[in-house]
Amino acid sequence: MPVVSQRGQQMPPSPIRKLVPFAEAAKKKGLRVYHLNIGQPDIVSPQPILDAVRQSDFKILEYSHSAGNESYRRKLTDYYARFNIPVQHDQIIVTTGGSEAIVFALLACLNPGEEVLVPEPFYANYNGFAIQAGVHVRTVTSTIEDGFALPSLAAFEKAITPRTKAIMICNPNNPTGYLYSRQELELLKQLCLQHNLFLLSDEAYREFCYNGTQVSALHLTDMDDKVVLMDTISKRYSACGGRIGALVTRNQEVLDTVMKFAQARLSPPTFAQIAGEAAVDMPMDYFDEIRMEYQHRRDLLVRMLNDIPGVYCPNPEGAFYVMARFPIDDADRFCQWILEEFNYEGQTVMLSSGTGFYATPGLGINQVRMAYVLNQEAITNAMHCLRHALEVYPGSTL
Amino acid sequence: MPVVSQRGQQMPPSPIRKLVPFAEAAKKKGLRVYHLNIGQPDIVSPQPILDAVRQSDFKILEYSHSAGNESYRRKLTDYYARFNIPVQHDQIIVTTGGSEAIVFALLACLNPGEEVLVPEPFYANYNGFAIQAGVHVRTVTSTIEDGFALPSLAAFEKAITPRTKAIMICNPNNPTGYLYSRQELELLKQLCLQHNLFLLSDEAYREFCYNGTQVSALHLTDMDDKVVLMDTISKRYSACGGRIGALVTRNQEVLDTVMKFAQARLSPPTFAQIAGEAAVDMPMDYFDEIRMEYQHRRDLLVRMLNDIPGVYCPNPEGAFYVMARFPIDDADRFCQWILEEFNYEGQTVMLSSGTGFYATPGLGINQVRMAYVLNQEAITNAMHCLRHALEVYPGSTL
Repeated sequence: MPVVSQRGQQMPPSPIRKLVPFAEAAKKKGLRVYHLNIGQPDIVSPQPILDAVRQSDFKILEYSHSAGNESYRRKLTDYYARFNIPVQHDQIIVTTGGSEAIVFALLACLNPGEEVLVPEPFYANYNGFAIQAGVHVRTVTSTIEDGFALPSLAAFEKAITPRTKAIMICNPNNPTGYLYSRQELELLKQLCLQHNLFLLSDEAYREFCYNGTQVSALHLTDMDDKVVLMDTISKRYSACGGRIGALVTRNQEVLDTVMKFAQARLSPPTFAQIAGEAAVDMPMDYFDEIRMEYQHRRDLLVRMLNDIPGVYCPNPEGAFYVMARFPIDDADRFCQWILEEFNYEGQTVMLSSGTGFYATPGLGINQVRMAYVLNQEAITNAMHCLRHALEVYPGSTL
Repeated sequence: MPVVSQRGQQMPPSPIRKLVPFAEAAKKKGLRVYHLNIGQPDIVSPQPILDAVRQSDFKILEYSHSAGNESYRRKLTDYYARFNIPVQHDQIIVTTGGSEAIVFALLACLNPGEEVLVPEPFYANYNGFAIQAGVHVRTVTSTIEDGFALPSLAAFEKAITPRTKAIMICNPNNPTGYLYSRQELELLKQLCLQHNLFLLSDEAYREFCYNGTQVSALHLTDMDDKVVLMDTISKRYSACGGRIGALVTRNQEVLDTVMKFAQARLSPPTFAQIAGEAAVDMPMDYFDEIRMEYQHRRDLLVRMLNDIPGVYCPNPEGAFYVMARFPIDDADRFCQWILEEFNYEGQTVMLSSGTGFYATPGLGINQVRMAYVLNQEAITNAMHCLRHALEVYPGSTL
């Protein structure tokens, strides 16, 4: 039998999904499982975007332009203009989800063997995309004590090697919810200018800011040749299944290069481009309501977490995730135990172990990521479960 | 400015699309351009598959399973059963178009630097996918004189090196239309068994067979650990814009590995999975009509081509492409000239130069690929244009 590739063997299984069999077993036992483990919002997709697809009247489901429909890209320039991000439609390449934008950015900007610097904890799938592109993720650690603020200039400087080609951030951050400040972005700019690095910025959660607003990497001056923005409609419009994202850059060489990868795969999905185009017309107050709902959820979750003895959770400013510290010996063990051996009044909780979000061995071992994508009643019930679980967990460090 | 990656520089621009500016200029001059250059069928998408999407009534456009909706994968087992291809639903991973299936197969089966053997001429985007995966395409040449039949065992043996890990075919073939016989597949099996190679089989055009039926790589016995089938609904149901394909294999290790790449990109597009699921319920006689229409087009195109002095076109048995030999000095020059400097009664033709489908320099220089995706009237008009063009083309070798 021919063996699978080494990179295939190195590919990490999804840390978020590896607990699925235990959750399924819990459900088979009749337990109610609160899913705080994945970033699938429970918010209904806006009716106008679903209607746009359902009312589409073309006769042939044909290939679109490899960069996405021009009408959609022109619409997107309006979208970005609202955030004071001036871009031309031909500086946008529509991708199959934010995932493809990230893969294209890595393929176009880095040679195999080169390094991309990422603050950890980080979105676990960056590991998979990096292996796919043959590049190395090198991390600079942010700490829960600092609320997961950007690591210091010195820490970045120390991690930069001759093979470093890019810095990649997620802002607001998944998994920490941290929103980078203008000062922090200026620090990244300084690093990129000094070391001639690309700044790859994943801004999937732009609208999800609860204190202040996002500073986009494309707001930075003198960085047009260095910034590549990776975006998606998934979270913004609760349209995860559409698989529509975008890569945006003012660097013509990067655009030309990404375009070649885009042409090879022919085109992004047509139906969801129609949804995406309709989404740009959503009234701006659409987000006000969504944002308020998420803010209430965050406030509730963070308060209830910090009320549990031994738990510490920073109050993040964006996205819809928190990374909290638990009084536990081993987050992987805890996340499995709570599904397999625990229930409180027939209920339990599915969480993501912190370890999956760190590259440095040993880090995140007492941390857990939670997505507040459930309504407030569900969050309240989940927190009651969690409080009781931590009281009886055999590996408690209290 | 940081420079783009070497692989990005090596990525070939789409040979099919590089003539687009010349076609656009021709249209601006008021010319009618017959597009024989791309595989976008003019056949309307079946109403039931569009209706299925338009009548979908979910409230949240959420992530599907990373392997695709289980209901769709179960339906697909019925589809394959009709072709005597017994597979389980968990041996199918739904992909974003056939393109992603090919990329996943290369990533999972080959290490960077390893080689995949491909009969040339071949689907040009294999080059791009190979560069993306860091693997090398090595070709074995099939000839127009043999109607592009599979090259000999000896030719394959000669091309196999210690780094060869897989053979990749497209059957029926794009760009030649050639349908591989059972004998030819048995020869490939012999090679794979002897040299422990994967057989990656792109079967996008399964239904498009005009003389006889397709032998699938999954029909081969004793090859369950070696065959990876790459499939798509794009051509089958004129649903190119959906971006739904599938990777099918009975090799559990390959499935597990591909699944990790699939998990990293979260899920294939939801709307088009709904279309794909509805497509499986299309009555079998749907293809009868389509097949007859394509057969008429092929017969017309091949006859009219062979009637032109100095032109030779084999009569291919499948897909909807032909590779023809023209009495010309340079196919790239000719394909540009016919758009830029020629017209016949206000009409001209867009073709694909043969050179884009060969890896061996110099091959295909007097060959042109045409897709018979236009109706018979358009094909007739296009052939009149072509006949006149070849009479006056300055680089004629007649």
